[in-house]
Amino acid sequence: MPLAPWRSLLARALHKNRKLPYARYFQLATLRADGRPANRTVVFRGFLDDTNQLKIITDCRSQKADQIDDQPWGEACWYFPESREQFRLAGQLTLVRADYPDQALQAARKTTWQELSDPARLQFAWPHPGEARTENNGAFSPPSPDPEQPLPNFCLLLLEPIEVDHLELRGDPQNRWLYYRNNSQEWSKQAVNP
Amino acid sequence: MPLAPWRSLLARALHKNRKLPYARYFQLATLRADGRPANRTVVFRGFLDDTNQLKIITDCRSQKADQIDDQPWGEACWYFPESREQFRLAGQLTLVRADYPDQALQAARKTTWQELSDPARLQFAWPHPGEARTENNGAFSPPSPDPEQPLPNFCLLLLEPIEVDHLELRGDPQNRWLYYRNNSQEWSKQAVNP
Repeated sequence: MPLAPWRSLLARALHKNRKLPYARYFQLATLRADGRPANRTVVFRGFLDDTNQLKIITDCRSQKADQIDDQPWGEACWYFPESREQFRLAGQLTLVRADYPDQALQAARKTTWQELSDPARLQFAWPHPGEARTENNGAFSPPSPDPEQPLPNFCLLLLEPIEVDHLELRGDPQNRWLYYRNNSQEWSKQAVNP
Repeated sequence: MPLAPWRSLLARALHKNRKLPYARYFQLATLRADGRPANRTVVFRGFLDDTNQLKIITDCRSQKADQIDDQPWGEACWYFPESREQFRLAGQLTLVRADYPDQALQAARKTTWQELSDPARLQFAWPHPGEARTENNGAFSPPSPDPEQPLPNFCLLLLEPIEVDHLELRGDPQNRWLYYRNNSQEWSKQAVNP
């Protein structure tokens, strides 16, 4: 699959903002069961090899996992403070749980786990997120999980954008472009008013 | 109306992150007409006097204005890079257009316009956002709008949270609290697992 035309712009933004660790964070909106939107910060974990899919990780015990099962659609909003630009990436979400049937995606889930830091892996051995706070603080210092084999609640989450809105606040006037993918997987680009 | 218990925490976060101008930006998720979530960066403009409502501004020609008319519910996700904490604020959205009947909110719309910088006001005199790029760059250098009287397309947007999720990434382990408002407008607080 060819790289989407917005990929090089996103790579440029990541490079320009590389001094800010939090420039790799973005906000992912999904839909709650009651039809209202939900929104939280997630960490960009790179692209799935040879695709335009953004990798994120999540715990299958988190609310967003259930939300994505019901409505596998999301919009990422990614603001880059140093270069003052925003990408909005709307598309399909794929939640790769421990029992996901596709073997290639299972392998990607495993690799993503192996690439995490020890503290990041440890969080998946913590008590159930969102439940009443576990009083025993020892529960947050569990034995280190196997760095090779993902814990069962570890999920790889993929976002495959089909619509990208790129806004550059720098420039007078500002610049904004929309990118759309059609059913033949071809991308088109349009300059729009900011 | 008493200040909600999360207000002082948000004030503290704004203070700790005051060196970063973009710490006043957050991401607002709404619902599109097709039932999918939308997400974009907005600027925090303070609280509406004596309330717990966050002030945002928007152009009534933008897509989010239509989305909010259809489904006046949103979730703000606000990440503070310096203090490494996140607030998720879910609640009701009120779009105060030029013809909004409540006089107090009309006055607030006007004051908010008056408090904007000249460049911020000028954007409301730009061509229709999201439409094909206007080739004539002069359209982006219109005469300065009246700093006293808002342009008709200028809207004040209010978010009244009824659910707030506060996560502190600092701390070992991390800390997380949920705040809920009941039908009697009373807030409760619960510590939950991060």
